Amino acid sequence: MGTRVVIVGAGFGGLSAAKALAKSPFDVTVIDRHNYHLFQPLLYQVATAGLSPADIASPIRGILARAPNVSVILGRVSGIDTERREVLADGRRIPYDTLILATGAQHAYFGHGDWAAHAPGLKTIDDATYIRRRILLAFEKAETETDPAERARLLNFVIVGGGPTGVEMAGAIAELANRALAKDFRAIDPRSARIVLVEAAPRLLTPFDPPLSAAARTSLEQLGVEVRTGAPVTALDDSGVSIGTERIETRTVVWAAGVMASPAGQWLGAETDRAGRLKVTPDLSVPGHPDIFVIGDTAALNDAKGNPLPGVAPVAKQQGQYLARLLRAREAGKALPPFRYRDYGILATIGRKRAVIQMGRFKLTGFLAWVLWSVAHIYFLIGFRNRFVVALNWMWNYVTFQRGTRLITGMSGAKVEELPMPADEKEILRRAS
Amino acid sequence: MGTRVVIVGAGFGGLSAAKALAKSPFDVTVIDRHNYHLFQPLLYQVATAGLSPADIASPIRGILARAPNVSVILGRVSGIDTERREVLADGRRIPYDTLILATGAQHAYFGHGDWAAHAPGLKTIDDATYIRRRILLAFEKAETETDPAERARLLNFVIVGGGPTGVEMAGAIAELANRALAKDFRAIDPRSARIVLVEAAPRLLTPFDPPLSAAARTSLEQLGVEVRTGAPVTALDDSGVSIGTERIETRTVVWAAGVMASPAGQWLGAETDRAGRLKVTPDLSVPGHPDIFVIGDTAALNDAKGNPLPGVAPVAKQQGQYLARLLRAREAGKALPPFRYRDYGILATIGRKRAVIQMGRFKLTGFLAWVLWSVAHIYFLIGFRNRFVVALNWMWNYVTFQRGTRLITGMSGAKVEELPMPADEKEILRRAS
Repeated sequence: MGTRVVIVGAGFGGLSAAKALAKSPFDVTVIDRHNYHLFQPLLYQVATAGLSPADIASPIRGILARAPNVSVILGRVSGIDTERREVLADGRRIPYDTLILATGAQHAYFGHGDWAAHAPGLKTIDDATYIRRRILLAFEKAETETDPAERARLLNFVIVGGGPTGVEMAGAIAELANRALAKDFRAIDPRSARIVLVEAAPRLLTPFDPPLSAAARTSLEQLGVEVRTGAPVTALDDSGVSIGTERIETRTVVWAAGVMASPAGQWLGAETDRAGRLKVTPDLSVPGHPDIFVIGDTAALNDAKGNPLPGVAPVAKQQGQYLARLLRAREAGKALPPFRYRDYGILATIGRKRAVIQMGRFKLTGFLAWVLWSVAHIYFLIGFRNRFVVALNWMWNYVTFQRGTRLITGMSGAKVEELPMPADEKEILRRAS
Repeated sequence: MGTRVVIVGAGFGGLSAAKALAKSPFDVTVIDRHNYHLFQPLLYQVATAGLSPADIASPIRGILARAPNVSVILGRVSGIDTERREVLADGRRIPYDTLILATGAQHAYFGHGDWAAHAPGLKTIDDATYIRRRILLAFEKAETETDPAERARLLNFVIVGGGPTGVEMAGAIAELANRALAKDFRAIDPRSARIVLVEAAPRLLTPFDPPLSAAARTSLEQLGVEVRTGAPVTALDDSGVSIGTERIETRTVVWAAGVMASPAGQWLGAETDRAGRLKVTPDLSVPGHPDIFVIGDTAALNDAKGNPLPGVAPVAKQQGQYLARLLRAREAGKALPPFRYRDYGILATIGRKRAVIQMGRFKLTGFLAWVLWSVAHIYFLIGFRNRFVVALNWMWNYVTFQRGTRLITGMSGAKVEELPMPADEKEILRRAS
């Protein structure tokens, strides 16, 4: 039996490591709490009824089926026994020689745990179908609501956080209201919905250059989104959001404002930064634990200029691939230079035909940027089927403005008023407080 | 304002009535507890990871968007005030001049309410994703199970009921195990899974002629399904099923054995048959209530030969269309002959390339029957998009034996052991006991 490599998490980082170790002499085990890999950059499309969960998720076992040296365990890791070199999951102990922690991040409310119940975040498929249900139910309730104040509240939507997720959610909700739902109701006009995007920083999309932030803002405003920058949320409850002295009454708030690394730092009792990320050495191992590596959103690492690497898929993927090379090199008695991130650029989409792209000095906005964004995302989606169905769905949405997936599921047996909160949300509440 | 027609339920019956009343002088309101119409005949494909929920469900508002005289209310009906002619839903009162009850059926355990927790039935999307989760989790648990007895129990699957749903489920689970999952696991061989179909009657598919029942049985056995006929279930708990003296140990039982009409009979305090269906007059109205009509699975009506009409989509659809004609005729001061069902035949599919079809004296089995079955189902699916995506998905499944939708959702934040039961299941438990 070869060296035992255990990978916790099958996101972009863990999966790229596992794929790069396929058909190697290593004995690889991938542990994830879900049975699928999720293409998170398109999760907002599930939350806004543009795509089905299966369009952006692919069973991990299927992806790794042709790698006989890789096995997959569906399980929830609760700790690491670094003395005995074992991963603890669902009461079992899984031994490792080398451990790769690729456990990602979750949304965080930074000291406002009570906000979680009113402002769900977007990290998992269950989060996305829950947000989809909340958005669609707000329109349904508004249709039968007789009190004008409550009706207005139901037709207000606030997105907190002006990063890529917040910008994408705001654009997609605006198009849902203005186009897909426009003719569906009799008592209300969905086009009268008010969508407000709130950002604490002075501009949207801070990782982009200011002209691109401004272009994104203009595009959103043309879609009817109200943008508030320099506006930190000071209060949030089940009937609205306060930004300084301004109060926005709403029943639907989406949280896209902050993430926190997974609890991997706690498992190891090792040093983390403010966002819970583990500090790693240049070869991505944990100081004092040369057999434990951390990649993706759980790792805190700076680039050559001293800037922290962003929490995006390409960083995680390149780190996973780097580790596979590193382990193979070490097995052959060789060394490898430290990890170095190759930045191919960042992009964000606004609604159905605009995007902003920044690749070094090259910048692009508008429709052409959207086309590039679409091609890139379809290309990176795992599995031919998903890629093809996503392309088809998009084309269909683009041509017709219909959204075929606007289903309110997970509420059979419940009254409309009783919105069941997914197990996930309860977990977030628990963690946040 | 025109005559107010309220339709409760947007299944095949209610929706066909609503569509046939589109752009009429009637003021139509459709009330449903879901925001989508469900193409129930393909629900077993969602439960066995062949299709996504959105492939077989279509938002009711979207279907009726171009009918300005039709409005849609998402709500749960709890009773009818026949004196004041009002429907009670979520604390609201919706007035009607004419009422159409098309509330369908739900699975029933006929005196064995305690079986519901161990043997979920298949009527809603949440039922289907719940069963999908149970089936996929059984394989996941078997992969990490070390006790051989428990592992065998996890790899046994029992389907109770040999009607079309039971036959289709058994065939689809067999193909999932033998094909789609075959290469996904390391510790178990999914092909060793045992699938048992149990039917109390002496043969499968009793509405079909005996040679077709025999053909269906042979096809199932060729897929590896064990068929037990004349075998009523005598006990059922969380570790297995008893058929007379035989005990089959299993963790996964699917209930396809019985349905019960919706509680519409109770709402009216009117006479129902043993299965809870309301007896109706030849014009589909409730005796003593000429302004209240009942169609589909909730209505008990015999054909010209005195045989009860089956609980299938074409009956419900034709009844809905008949009612629309009847109401238009009455508005014009005319009369209409009694409802008469035109039987175009029955069909059931077995796995990925066989079916049985019976149209009067014409009978067909095997691959050609499957092709006909596929064409018929794709044709009847509502909405171009769904039809197209379903065709694509099927082709893809057919060519590759992959199942892209085998996602275990609705369990984030929970341990693998803690299978959350959907609200729906709790409701069924409550009703069943």
